Amino acid sequence: MKKTIILGSVAFDAIETPFEKTDKIIGGAGTYICFAASYFSKPHALAVVGGDFPQEYISKLEQKGIVIDGIQIKKQEKTFFWSGKYFDNMNQRETLITELNVLEHFDPIVPDSYQNADYLMLGNLSPIVQRQVIERLTKRPKLIVMDTMNFWMDILFDELLQTIALVDVITINDEEARQLSGEYSIPKAAQKIMAMGPKYVIIKKGEHGAIVFYKNKTFYAPALPLETVIDPTGAGDTFAGGFIGYIAQQDKTDFETIKNAIVVGSALASFTVEQMGTQGIENRTQTEINERIAAFKTLTSYTL
Amino acid sequence: MKKTIILGSVAFDAIETPFEKTDKIIGGAGTYICFAASYFSKPHALAVVGGDFPQEYISKLEQKGIVIDGIQIKKQEKTFFWSGKYFDNMNQRETLITELNVLEHFDPIVPDSYQNADYLMLGNLSPIVQRQVIERLTKRPKLIVMDTMNFWMDILFDELLQTIALVDVITINDEEARQLSGEYSIPKAAQKIMAMGPKYVIIKKGEHGAIVFYKNKTFYAPALPLETVIDPTGAGDTFAGGFIGYIAQQDKTDFETIKNAIVVGSALASFTVEQMGTQGIENRTQTEINERIAAFKTLTSYTL
Repeated sequence: MKKTIILGSVAFDAIETPFEKTDKIIGGAGTYICFAASYFSKPHALAVVGGDFPQEYISKLEQKGIVIDGIQIKKQEKTFFWSGKYFDNMNQRETLITELNVLEHFDPIVPDSYQNADYLMLGNLSPIVQRQVIERLTKRPKLIVMDTMNFWMDILFDELLQTIALVDVITINDEEARQLSGEYSIPKAAQKIMAMGPKYVIIKKGEHGAIVFYKNKTFYAPALPLETVIDPTGAGDTFAGGFIGYIAQQDKTDFETIKNAIVVGSALASFTVEQMGTQGIENRTQTEINERIAAFKTLTSYTL
Repeated sequence: MKKTIILGSVAFDAIETPFEKTDKIIGGAGTYICFAASYFSKPHALAVVGGDFPQEYISKLEQKGIVIDGIQIKKQEKTFFWSGKYFDNMNQRETLITELNVLEHFDPIVPDSYQNADYLMLGNLSPIVQRQVIERLTKRPKLIVMDTMNFWMDILFDELLQTIALVDVITINDEEARQLSGEYSIPKAAQKIMAMGPKYVIIKKGEHGAIVFYKNKTFYAPALPLETVIDPTGAGDTFAGGFIGYIAQQDKTDFETIKNAIVVGSALASFTVEQMGTQGIENRTQTEINERIAAFKTLTSYTL
């Protein structure tokens, strides 16, 4: 099985929705990405947690076949904590608390056993940390995927550009693509971002699906219309995890594989939003996943 | 060729975008619907204009093979006039002027030559007028499609419900579906609207495409990502025109045909937004239309 490194926060989340409110539960981009990728490949997690992070949460990851050698535990420090609240329509949220804690001085140490990885997924973190991981790998992976967000455009724009120049795929939402490129038109924005480095630009549109741009080609995967959306937290990270996991499983990086990977990512993300926190993505069967992928096919198939 | 009646305003529009500003040009829902439908069937327009409406505009319709016997000309009155302004992102617009004029007391007279029509498209107008047309047909068409908007929900809700109960297909945007049903979830909203009468509920999502719900089935056609959007006016009406035109051409109303019709409608709408007013949809070749439909196939095809 191809070695896949997942950089991303492993953290505490506290989530409030119109329906439900959680205590501190397991969260973080890296957690969602690893859970999703675990259905297709063997994720090697690269993260940092504090001494307050429960052993049972680490065990949860291990039980899913996730390699945890790259998760540093800083006993004297506290784990990254995010708390957010969703409004009635679930499309907008407010961040209540962000405690960086261990993430403030995160120095990603790549274990020797992670070297020679074939695939690298850089979850949303400081572009400096993302770039450090690339630089600390002795061999460049076949495909490097990065996620980012507007926050880094606001405070570390030049650093972000340097990191973007090094990756093959970037995932970003439509507003962020506009901010990064200065273009309102999404196709134009994607062309400008491709000129910054990435071969593939994936625009995440939430309930409206995802679009990938590659050279002059475009593929649009709509999102599965869901009766019930309980908690959108981690949907984008789950998408990324399904995406990189499928690519690692196929061990191909051509456009056809990228398109299929987007469908897989979208299918997995639909599980995440149906339950609170990571519950929706933690324990799926291969049959359930195949059914969801088949539902996508039905959703978009026509005979004309 | 199957007879198709198109009820809808034939009017003057004055449009302002960040790029361009028009004088009073030909516009109105009925105009866009007829232009789009004319590529596939012979639209029979049902509308009213004033004495100020130029003969050259009527000729434009006739040249596209549109039957104009059902367009009343009220010599002493003025044509409906709408003026609107789009903001930078083209997703929001402000109505500057609405002069109802001839539409205020529009009493749709169905010419004898329109009787026994096979298909009926009710463009966005008062639900009372829409229902009058249905009632004035001696034989019920095989498929009745209606478009509507939030305005009628605000001021004529009960009348609207009565009309909705009589149709087979309703086209509506996502916010309007939520308002009409009281459900935020689009699949739940669609189910509630189906319970009001229509077999098919089509949710128009603009740049995010369109979704149709039928029983427990769903089909999602994304919109073609366009480099340049010049003027969104009439996009929804063009969609409706391509939709009903294709159905009339095929003379079938099963779900597979409805799905294909949505793709055709989306393809035609993409022409409309690329130019000011009706220019984009007025003069397309069959080859151009086929290429646009093929582009949709490419956009959504994957092998998984």
